[in-house]
Amino acid sequence: MQQFTPAEWQSWERFYRANFINSLTGFKSASLIGTINADGVPNLGMFSSMVHIGSDPALIGYINRPVAAAPHTLANIKANKLYTVNHIHASFLDKAHQTSAKYPDEVNEFTEVGLTEAFIEGVPVPFVKESHIKYLLSLKEIIPIQLNDTFLVIGQLEQVMIDSSLQPSADGFLHLDQAGSICSNGLDAYYNTQLIDRYAYAKPGKLADKL
Amino acid sequence: MQQFTPAEWQSWERFYRANFINSLTGFKSASLIGTINADGVPNLGMFSSMVHIGSDPALIGYINRPVAAAPHTLANIKANKLYTVNHIHASFLDKAHQTSAKYPDEVNEFTEVGLTEAFIEGVPVPFVKESHIKYLLSLKEIIPIQLNDTFLVIGQLEQVMIDSSLQPSADGFLHLDQAGSICSNGLDAYYNTQLIDRYAYAKPGKLADKL
Repeated sequence: MQQFTPAEWQSWERFYRANFINSLTGFKSASLIGTINADGVPNLGMFSSMVHIGSDPALIGYINRPVAAAPHTLANIKANKLYTVNHIHASFLDKAHQTSAKYPDEVNEFTEVGLTEAFIEGVPVPFVKESHIKYLLSLKEIIPIQLNDTFLVIGQLEQVMIDSSLQPSADGFLHLDQAGSICSNGLDAYYNTQLIDRYAYAKPGKLADKL
Repeated sequence: MQQFTPAEWQSWERFYRANFINSLTGFKSASLIGTINADGVPNLGMFSSMVHIGSDPALIGYINRPVAAAPHTLANIKANKLYTVNHIHASFLDKAHQTSAKYPDEVNEFTEVGLTEAFIEGVPVPFVKESHIKYLLSLKEIIPIQLNDTFLVIGQLEQVMIDSSLQPSADGFLHLDQAGSICSNGLDAYYNTQLIDRYAYAKPGKLADKL
């Protein structure tokens, strides 16, 4: 085993440290958050920190970096209270990654990177047409994380849209590998996935069966 | 597109709803958190909500469910302030999943499921010997999420241990697919991954190159 200490990573160049520390937490989702600003201009940004908070009520969170580093999505969510989250697939991965560039607030990332806005009735914020799984959240709470000026932004699930070719399993499970949703690691690496197994609900006494 | 509304998922059977809602946030890490209780008995539990909070200082969070549903890990972290996080590989996935069974507090999940405790000097909490990537956190803050009685538990990175066969890339990145770290989806599905691409830091004007 190689052992790394705080003194080592604090001495590293900034991007080396960011690559290393970001990889440690393991694979993560990669989603595009769609918002509109106060002038109605759409914004689209890549986020890899979506986190399940609870199923009943259905609450989903993400970590927003300090305002100076990532101002637009958070400001738009505060102003409008509604935002969309859109899965990413390999077919438009280069465009999705490109939304992480620092565009000015008045720039519409959809048109800039070549993705398509899609709307549903009564909802002002854009979904990504190319995404097979997407959902609408309404802002419930922004919790400041004072340790490093980040925020846990929590939304309540308001709508879910799933491509007609994808049916939930008999038990409600969504086969994200069949949907072609990708996962990410670190700052800039993206992966396809292959199912190993699903397991039964574990109970003490014997190893849970594979489903 | 199939469209699902809150009225629908609120009418669903509990596990169907949990499977569906848990799948929406996309792929996630799957890690084993190692702790000891006030009597020194080790505890090992599966968590799929590790989330990167920041690289400098290096802060990593996870969501702990309500205390009544998931009491031991959180109580142990409060009592001892130190905890380990251990990546999961397909070679011991069945044992890792089994730690999600509700064992009494006095049961040591390591011995119960057949994983091996590993210690480093001066650290009382156990790592998982079988894990190729693992790290030590010290508790910094427990932030209550009052919306559903869950908690964002934030730790500061204190040590990292990586199998000697795995070298960080020249830029600090860790190839988790080569490490055999798995990812998860929903409540009970686990996946291997295949790298699609890494991309350069995106700047406005042209699509970022692949690395």
